[in-house]
Amino acid sequence: MAGNSFGKLFILSTFGESHGEATGGVIDGCPAGLSMDMEFIQSELDRRKPGQSHIVSQRRESDRVEFLSGIFEGKTMGTPIGFIIRNEDQKSKDYEHNKDVYRPSHADYTYDAKYGMRDHRGGGRSSARETVSRVVAGAIAKLLLKQYDISVHAYTSQVGDIKLLKDYHELDLNTTDSNIVRCPDALIAETMISKIEQVRKAGDTVGGTISCVITGTPAGLGEPVFDKLHADLGKAMLSINAVKGFEYGSGFEGVKMNGSAHNDIFIQGNNSIHTKTNHSGGIQGGISNGEDIYFKVAFKPVATIMQQQDTVNSAGEAAEIMGKGRHDPCVLPRAVPIVEAMAALVMADHLLRNRNSKLNN
Amino acid sequence: MAGNSFGKLFILSTFGESHGEATGGVIDGCPAGLSMDMEFIQSELDRRKPGQSHIVSQRRESDRVEFLSGIFEGKTMGTPIGFIIRNEDQKSKDYEHNKDVYRPSHADYTYDAKYGMRDHRGGGRSSARETVSRVVAGAIAKLLLKQYDISVHAYTSQVGDIKLLKDYHELDLNTTDSNIVRCPDALIAETMISKIEQVRKAGDTVGGTISCVITGTPAGLGEPVFDKLHADLGKAMLSINAVKGFEYGSGFEGVKMNGSAHNDIFIQGNNSIHTKTNHSGGIQGGISNGEDIYFKVAFKPVATIMQQQDTVNSAGEAAEIMGKGRHDPCVLPRAVPIVEAMAALVMADHLLRNRNSKLNN
Amino acid sequence: MAGNSFGKLFILSTFGESHGEATGGVIDGCPAGLSMDMEFIQSELDRRKPGQSHIVSQRRESDRVEFLSGIFEGKTMGTPIGFIIRNEDQKSKDYEHNKDVYRPSHADYTYDAKYGMRDHRGGGRSSARETVSRVVAGAIAKLLLKQYDISVHAYTSQVGDIKLLKDYHELDLNTTDSNIVRCPDALIAETMISKIEQVRKAGDTVGGTISCVITGTPAGLGEPVFDKLHADLGKAMLSINAVKGFEYGSGFEGVKMNGSAHNDIFIQGNNSIHTKTNHSGGIQGGISNGEDIYFKVAFKPVATIMQQQDTVNSAGEAAEIMGKGRHDPCVLPRAVPIVEAMAALVMADHLLRNRNSKLNN
Amino acid sequence: MAGNSFGKLFILSTFGESHGEATGGVIDGCPAGLSMDMEFIQSELDRRKPGQSHIVSQRRESDRVEFLSGIFEGKTMGTPIGFIIRNEDQKSKDYEHNKDVYRPSHADYTYDAKYGMRDHRGGGRSSARETVSRVVAGAIAKLLLKQYDISVHAYTSQVGDIKLLKDYHELDLNTTDSNIVRCPDALIAETMISKIEQVRKAGDTVGGTISCVITGTPAGLGEPVFDKLHADLGKAMLSINAVKGFEYGSGFEGVKMNGSAHNDIFIQGNNSIHTKTNHSGGIQGGISNGEDIYFKVAFKPVATIMQQQDTVNSAGEAAEIMGKGRHDPCVLPRAVPIVEAMAALVMADHLLRNRNSKLNN
Repeated sequence: MAGNSFGKLFILSTFGESHGEATGGVIDGCPAGLSMDMEFIQSELDRRKPGQSHIVSQRRESDRVEFLSGIFEGKTMGTPIGFIIRNEDQKSKDYEHNKDVYRPSHADYTYDAKYGMRDHRGGGRSSARETVSRVVAGAIAKLLLKQYDISVHAYTSQVGDIKLLKDYHELDLNTTDSNIVRCPDALIAETMISKIEQVRKAGDTVGGTISCVITGTPAGLGEPVFDKLHADLGKAMLSINAVKGFEYGSGFEGVKMNGSAHNDIFIQGNNSIHTKTNHSGGIQGGISNGEDIYFKVAFKPVATIMQQQDTVNSAGEAAEIMGKGRHDPCVLPRAVPIVEAMAALVMADHLLRNRNSKLNN
Repeated sequence: MAGNSFGKLFILSTFGESHGEATGGVIDGCPAGLSMDMEFIQSELDRRKPGQSHIVSQRRESDRVEFLSGIFEGKTMGTPIGFIIRNEDQKSKDYEHNKDVYRPSHADYTYDAKYGMRDHRGGGRSSARETVSRVVAGAIAKLLLKQYDISVHAYTSQVGDIKLLKDYHELDLNTTDSNIVRCPDALIAETMISKIEQVRKAGDTVGGTISCVITGTPAGLGEPVFDKLHADLGKAMLSINAVKGFEYGSGFEGVKMNGSAHNDIFIQGNNSIHTKTNHSGGIQGGISNGEDIYFKVAFKPVATIMQQQDTVNSAGEAAEIMGKGRHDPCVLPRAVPIVEAMAALVMADHLLRNRNSKLNN
Repeated sequence: MAGNSFGKLFILSTFGESHGEATGGVIDGCPAGLSMDMEFIQSELDRRKPGQSHIVSQRRESDRVEFLSGIFEGKTMGTPIGFIIRNEDQKSKDYEHNKDVYRPSHADYTYDAKYGMRDHRGGGRSSARETVSRVVAGAIAKLLLKQYDISVHAYTSQVGDIKLLKDYHELDLNTTDSNIVRCPDALIAETMISKIEQVRKAGDTVGGTISCVITGTPAGLGEPVFDKLHADLGKAMLSINAVKGFEYGSGFEGVKMNGSAHNDIFIQGNNSIHTKTNHSGGIQGGISNGEDIYFKVAFKPVATIMQQQDTVNSAGEAAEIMGKGRHDPCVLPRAVPIVEAMAALVMADHLLRNRNSKLNN
Repeated sequence: MAGNSFGKLFILSTFGESHGEATGGVIDGCPAGLSMDMEFIQSELDRRKPGQSHIVSQRRESDRVEFLSGIFEGKTMGTPIGFIIRNEDQKSKDYEHNKDVYRPSHADYTYDAKYGMRDHRGGGRSSARETVSRVVAGAIAKLLLKQYDISVHAYTSQVGDIKLLKDYHELDLNTTDSNIVRCPDALIAETMISKIEQVRKAGDTVGGTISCVITGTPAGLGEPVFDKLHADLGKAMLSINAVKGFEYGSGFEGVKMNGSAHNDIFIQGNNSIHTKTNHSGGIQGGISNGEDIYFKVAFKPVATIMQQQDTVNSAGEAAEIMGKGRHDPCVLPRAVPIVEAMAALVMADHLLRNRNSKLNN
């Protein structure tokens, strides 16, 4: 109930504070017989790790995952997969000055209010460091989805006011990782990178959006009425640090449309039923209909800025604070693999859950 | 796992198809000793029921809730609260023509794909009729929240392209129910009503947004890391029929801001710590900080339109379909109490969950 | 969390007090496409209902189940199955004298301690009346198990000191219902009936044991490490009113044996591997091995006796109490279908859970 | 759902195979502010570890627990407590001969049937090595219970046919650990030890029972109707390796009694209501009544014997097998702390769950 587990059948539980011994997790419910591709898993971690480019945090973490259980002779055994990632570059002293001071728009105050204490050495449990475990589990979920030809592709679609206006159909999503901001449009990517460089120089930060497309989903995934596929995707995204919004299919723009224009007309394809348009975003009544699933996620600007800010301390006295350490001026580039990981976890979970929808599945 | 339960400690499970015998639910986990205000509960149902005005569905349902258990001498006993609402006005023959035809942007096709069958008499389980149980449970959750001075206020903030631009601070949310579209700005409300009348005449439908404000929340509610308060609110909203998006605090607009402008500076108030601005939407690190919680929900236009549409039948053959029966041209007015109900369920759940955050609570 | 739900994938939630409006339940997770045999379901209820013979409670309840959802054209739809059983013969005045007095070995005192209140009209939620919902759900679970040739057979194996010494292999379990005490040995059954008649005349009650055999289980059901098949069976049985003990396979007697005598030697059968002996009770390492599963359940004597007893009231003052109303002198005969129902629920749940054990199931 | 988690609010998830890298767990839901007593936690592990006396397995494992998260400055933070225990003395070659052969009354065959594979290097996930994580979590649960003056005391009450006939009231439970078999009666203990020495010499094994007493429980713990306190205790015990039975209070013996003798008469004590006798075992209607909770657990003889046994291999061919390695001739001495740990986990969980029973708790 304490909220550190995600999923109903493909379940990830995570543990670890940013400045504790290690971060890690347990995956329970992964079926037996899935081949582990360790290189792939590590490569996903590398996409998330700090220090990968000059526009992200310069912390040095090798982010090597150590698997402790659940895998034997290269395959999952059906038993829980325990894993840890040691925290290496914890410069706790960067945080000593924060001990009693509440950083604006951070979780310092709310953790104190909730628990009567907090790990002041850094974000502790509220740090995005926790997402390293999500990426490990998401990579394994991707390996499971691959067996069913389901793929997940996320990319940066907006940084500040620089917005990628092209639809995903007009983009080559295989080029996402060809630039450091992870935007599959070279020109826009360059502008985004400049934007990030500019705010970083100013000791400031900037927000943005990540778009995600899931292809290959069979019709039938998602559970009425509360665990609709998009409701679980939405919760997954909103559980990521700094996320402020989620929309799928026609989203917020679609509210302006009339039903006659918004409805997706069914047509008969070669082997199966399709829709002419896809305002539904691949999900109808909370259940996948076989079309592409697509959604967008809003990230606020990072709260830690390299500027002096007014605040109060735990005694309620006025104080000043200025970010130290090595922080991200923009989380988007590193959040792309996190969005994919969480999406993959949702899809893997619903894939397993759907095995029980019919008497004879 | 089949997705018909919501909440971890204050749990609602619902059952019922739109054209079955009854719709109902079980609330498990409501603490003993809460006084039931039956008039209030029924008044919440009345806000949701069809036929309440000329801009909503003209179906006639008295929507009387019958409580079967869990209440004794006017108070909750701590045992599960079972309740049912009989379905009265089921004109199943309105649907006979749909038996094998997939209505565009409805859940007919996906239910067939998932279960190998469906209740073709109407939306069945996918019908918004199911939300009547949510409103019953939400009303009880509101009674619980009232004990802690927490209030939930939703209102229609956009219909099609008619958008209420005022911030909630500039509105008197007590006037929301003073007009049939439930917009707390009389002028905008009239325009919205005209808009709905116009699409209804055209046999069409229109979408919109609902905004919601939660006041009085103590700091500390929300569970890291997956069950962040806004993640659970987001899932709750996305589980409502026709919802396509959710944003809280600065939302999608906030992504354009820099951190220096977006950060909410802490200040000392009379008795407790506050923030100068509230881009955080009352939630930091997934935990309430004591400020107002506010969010916005996007609803697509209703899929059932009174116009002829192309589609296919279950054999994949081309077919035509035209809506019959008595449908909503716009769900917004009736969705306001549903948004409030789901928000209240989330808050009640987290209120109880937070009782275990500290050793000595 | 409030404890009124059972199962992880085939989930039963129950509600209802003995003297409230109705008792009922919701089954969530039953796969779509299962044919309902309404006569069978009612016949299971008839096996549990009071008044069926002179050795059980003479309360009159028709115990007619009304299904409200989840079933269409005689088959499950995959949506939750809601059902209610109206309480008919609630002579609440039989209990008026108990309002403030704690009945010995009943739950009056503990409910007051837990909830600060209780439904004094009878057992309320602690009454065995609640098990009527378990029998409905258990009957549906049996229909599901039947598709896989799994059968559940319980029978009375001891009443007071009258013990059936024969092993289940020596009995014809199809004769269990041929006598009113439900013991598949006519001679022992008669002695048991005489015993019950005798304690009833004395205004007293008596305990006993029920044995249960599950045949046809495929190897592989049960989830390490906490949800071992026998652990879930044990919990299921211990959740039944008046149960004080559970043992499976060699049970408490087996502790005297040496490993060399207790081990079940594997042998090759016609099509599959079997064991020579079955001290394991069909479960090894918490997982079914394909042999018969068998276990025994201990029931204490009913607490309500027709004799004067000393006690205290809620103010702690000395008081006297004497049972009124129409109670069972021995629960065993009516508990046989309840034991079967709970066993069937566990097996159905694990059958569905096991669908996800392997990548290619 | 895969069964590797236990508890609803105080939740333990474990991972690890006996011959993998490490065994470990995550405790989620422990309230913030609990002081960790690391010496106590290690001492509990030492009570369970192999090699502690000549009547248990001679494997050498230091069983040092490493905490990775959730603890800061000696106190719990409310965040998940991750921990690992490295596996040191894995002589996998002891098991090479078992690769394709099914050990009688072990889980080899059932794991193969369930998962299509297994870790043949030892018991893998089915090994009692997994219980090391339970003892860590149980020790933390004990620290929590201590805050409420709740204590858990288990002891060996039977080995083979050597049975301790004294009631727990006649024993000094503080002397349990004064002998290596953990029986708080010096004379019986010696006989038990001789018995174990004798079976060990014969290359055989023997079963027994462990009794457990929980003192100091306030009235009110336990959740009707499925999560009765004794049902959760029963499941907890039955989830321990080699357990075949569970009874509480009057148990299987009580079934012979009449209600008039079995009922526990209420009396007024100094400050609170008590019962004259305690056949109820401290639990009525599934809820604690403030009296001592006591129960008994049956353990079968260990399956690994140092004698040649017939069996089959995975191809169904006849084979022979003989135990190698360093096994326990009797699990009882090392199971005492495991029984205590599982009991403590159940009590801690229900202590937290009960915080929500009333509106004003």
